[in-house]
Amino acid sequence: MTHYPASILNLIKHISKLPGIGEKTAERLALHILRSPRKDAHQLAQSIVEVKDKVRSCSKCYGLSDSDLCKICSDPTRDRSLVCVVEQPADMVAVEKSGAFRGLYHILSGVLSPMDGIGPDDIRIRELITKVEDHQVKEVVLATGTNVEGESTAVFIAQRLQKYPVKVTRIASGVPIGGDLKYVDQVTLKKAMETRHDV
Amino acid sequence: MTHYPASILNLIKHISKLPGIGEKTAERLALHILRSPRKDAHQLAQSIVEVKDKVRSCSKCYGLSDSDLCKICSDPTRDRSLVCVVEQPADMVAVEKSGAFRGLYHILSGVLSPMDGIGPDDIRIRELITKVEDHQVKEVVLATGTNVEGESTAVFIAQRLQKYPVKVTRIASGVPIGGDLKYVDQVTLKKAMETRHDV
Repeated sequence: MTHYPASILNLIKHISKLPGIGEKTAERLALHILRSPRKDAHQLAQSIVEVKDKVRSCSKCYGLSDSDLCKICSDPTRDRSLVCVVEQPADMVAVEKSGAFRGLYHILSGVLSPMDGIGPDDIRIRELITKVEDHQVKEVVLATGTNVEGESTAVFIAQRLQKYPVKVTRIASGVPIGGDLKYVDQVTLKKAMETRHDV
Repeated sequence: MTHYPASILNLIKHISKLPGIGEKTAERLALHILRSPRKDAHQLAQSIVEVKDKVRSCSKCYGLSDSDLCKICSDPTRDRSLVCVVEQPADMVAVEKSGAFRGLYHILSGVLSPMDGIGPDDIRIRELITKVEDHQVKEVVLATGTNVEGESTAVFIAQRLQKYPVKVTRIASGVPIGGDLKYVDQVTLKKAMETRHDV
């Protein structure tokens, strides 16, 4: 690897810092960038710098935004009485892709995790409660992950919201659509069986 | 995907132009860059720009270099009577990694390929002959690929060099037939270099 000029080695080093990119792939990508038109390379570099400079937290939902309010929070057609609580901006994008939700979001920026020293004050639970107190929220949909941390965060938030006149719901868990039953893990199947409903 | 702010969509678009990077991976990498420290993102962007600005062809071997002469051509300990002919800079790096060659290189920047309209004047065969005429080259090692184009390029060069008082050898086909030199493991390449034979 040391047989490349310093600037190529430098590029390989920085590319291989990206998650899931090994040294071989980094070498391949670096040589591709070297061969590609100068304009393409500059646009790539520019877009990396811009994403750090432009993207900030939406002041309302804490999602990713290029401006003070994100596209969803500033959309007048969204149902402001519905708030979906997710862990990360990428989760919000996943829910949006499903097309099944037309309300607003609230991004916690994490989950409760005593093992990692993350408590209720480290994620945006206080901000969620303020929202419930201030606005006309009728339903809070808890869409945190279905692992231990996600579940306990959902339970914790549900308890905190008990004293407010707001409906608190949790997204259903069960067998993924299109999935083959024999490949589904036992815990999921157990959950799906326990929460079975009338057809 | 359209649920991201414009600057993130822009970054995803440019990352997914890289070879072997699909839209999902591009999304994952873009979000990683967004989360990573500003310094890291700037260093990555900077290294992309620098590789295009700094890297040029070595004026002697036509390999990748940050300066007029590459590290190998300017190394006084290399054997100047030996010249290894390869197709691409990455092939030179592969041979270097094998550690079996201590001479200089000559990068053709391609292979003869009548199908693609690439003839003898489109790759650096003339420059190789000039080198043989001008310098004290005693042996030319042909290390082009072992596919049809690589083999015929080797044969063509051997024929062109027949009239000069220079030994022309070909790396042994320990290299898998149809293989691309830069993907061959180092031990195989070393073996092939050691058992090179007269053409």
